[in-house]
Amino acid sequence: MVIPVDDAADPRIADYVRLRDSELRKSLEAERGLFIAEGEKVIRRAVATGHRLRSVLTTAKWLDRLADVIGDVPTYLVSDEVMRGIAGFQVHRGALAAVERPELPSVAGLLTGPGSGEGPPGRILILEDLVDHGNVGAIFRCAAALGVDAIILSPRCADPLYRRAVKVSMGAVFAIPYARMDDWYHGLGEVRAAGFRLLALTPDQSAVPLHEAELGERVALLLGSEGDGLSARWLDLADERVCIPMSPAAMARGVDSLNVVAAAAIACHGLMRGR
Amino acid sequence: MVIPVDDAADPRIADYVRLRDSELRKSLEAERGLFIAEGEKVIRRAVATGHRLRSVLTTAKWLDRLADVIGDVPTYLVSDEVMRGIAGFQVHRGALAAVERPELPSVAGLLTGPGSGEGPPGRILILEDLVDHGNVGAIFRCAAALGVDAIILSPRCADPLYRRAVKVSMGAVFAIPYARMDDWYHGLGEVRAAGFRLLALTPDQSAVPLHEAELGERVALLLGSEGDGLSARWLDLADERVCIPMSPAAMARGVDSLNVVAAAAIACHGLMRGR
Ligand SMILES: C[S@@+](CC[C@H](N)C(=O)[O-])C[C@H]1O[C@@H](n2cnc3c(N)ncnc32)[C@H](O)[C@@H]1O
Ligand SMILES: C[S@@+](CC[C@H](N)C(=O)[O-])C[C@H]1O[C@@H](n2cnc3c(N)ncnc32)[C@H](O)[C@@H]1O
Repeated sequence: MVIPVDDAADPRIADYVRLRDSELRKSLEAERGLFIAEGEKVIRRAVATGHRLRSVLTTAKWLDRLADVIGDVPTYLVSDEVMRGIAGFQVHRGALAAVERPELPSVAGLLTGPGSGEGPPGRILILEDLVDHGNVGAIFRCAAALGVDAIILSPRCADPLYRRAVKVSMGAVFAIPYARMDDWYHGLGEVRAAGFRLLALTPDQSAVPLHEAELGERVALLLGSEGDGLSARWLDLADERVCIPMSPAAMARGVDSLNVVAAAAIACHGLMRGR
Repeated sequence: MVIPVDDAADPRIADYVRLRDSELRKSLEAERGLFIAEGEKVIRRAVATGHRLRSVLTTAKWLDRLADVIGDVPTYLVSDEVMRGIAGFQVHRGALAAVERPELPSVAGLLTGPGSGEGPPGRILILEDLVDHGNVGAIFRCAAALGVDAIILSPRCADPLYRRAVKVSMGAVFAIPYARMDDWYHGLGEVRAAGFRLLALTPDQSAVPLHEAELGERVALLLGSEGDGLSARWLDLADERVCIPMSPAAMARGVDSLNVVAAAAIACHGLMRGR
């Protein structure tokens, strides 16, 4: 169902308002129970993984290519100019979709659930208070590529369904099951009780090197925020502190840690070889 | 030398104009031979690594903290509002600096030069046509942390001294020697002639797994762009095509490659263990 719209302020397209304003979007998307998918590839992944599109916003050029996905979803057709006005940026591959936000499992449900297919999850990541949506998206992509079964987010960790996270993840946020803790202080206890060994990843080079860490049947890797790293509490609660060895020259180069995506990639790769 | 400025259009601060407009900045910075450093930490790294500040732009709140770095560099003092107007974004840690762009070594000079200290470089990265400045910066940070000696850029690869790259690298772009090829077609020949084994990193899972690749005294890792990956020419010219094994489940999750920063991190970590 194609509906031409020629005004960026048209209330029918209010779901797409001010896409660059992350504070506004946070409350708007929570309230309306939706998220935004950007670009043909990501929209197709959303549909393929069982998400329901509420509407699509696109330009004439992309209409044909999307015909099969759109079906009878309300599809707002706008000019390139209106598109830029609404989005405030060049829309990657000419289409946006407002998608129904799925209900997340509880942490307990996630840990006993089917993981990504074959039995309950054995390899998981736990992200504490990451603020950058791009980093969260990139970590989901790594997790999908490198055999991680599920991800748990701290209460304040950035939303994997925020537009930029979805885009950077290449849609991996739809494929990796995840849950959000509701209690930062006690949340790790539940994971340990489910039989997971908790490994805290820290740049501290006096910690156990990753390749010497003991893994076991169920392993959770804890990753900390871009600025401060893991909290003292989570470092204390972990079974072991683990580091990725860095070059002795790193400090002299002014670098005292890896970025969290690089650390996650190396650690997930290490876990995979440990299987 | 502190100079109060109350108008974003004041010609004395024209070096800082339209910082978010990457096309404009590209030509402006090349023409004027400068780059922009953002934030106290990065500005300090620039100075510590021998770069010359042309000017600083800051708000009252940051003036004291920067006093020792500023010395007699012209320092334009603006209100928070003017700062936001100029930058078009919230300036991370209240200060910007216009810095003299250093002259780059030639590729030949880089390969015979002192590397990052102890003898000529033995472990290098070669980046083909990466477009995202954040990715380039993150790869420099990985390189600094994981013992890479130098980096070579293809003629069209994004600039490591673009503001965002500098920031994401945490200043590692000042510490890792790098050069830019002037000839994409023949550029790899020169590297091989210098005795490097060229390993092309590709997501193609039929390539040799990274941990089985033969390394040798001098190794260059080739990394490709976010969209298309390495060109057919570079894949052909390499001594070996090498892949990071991905989970068999990745494809079903819609993920057919790692992002280039994750791939670089895993590969550099692998190289380091191979030393
Ligand atoms: C940018 S770092 C945080 C730096 C912070 N100053 C600290 O000391 O933790 C973000 C996260 O990446 C992971 N990380 C970074 N470098 C690491 C390394 N060399 N080994 C293990 N984990 C690392 C840790 O989980 C860390 O919390
Ligand atoms: C996003 S990928 C490019 C994907 C592109 N479709 C291709 O087939 O090359 C960007 C770069 O990261 C590196 N890369 C990504 N995944 C990799 C993997 N599993 N093994 C080795 N290198 C990889 C390669 O250098 C690649 O050129």
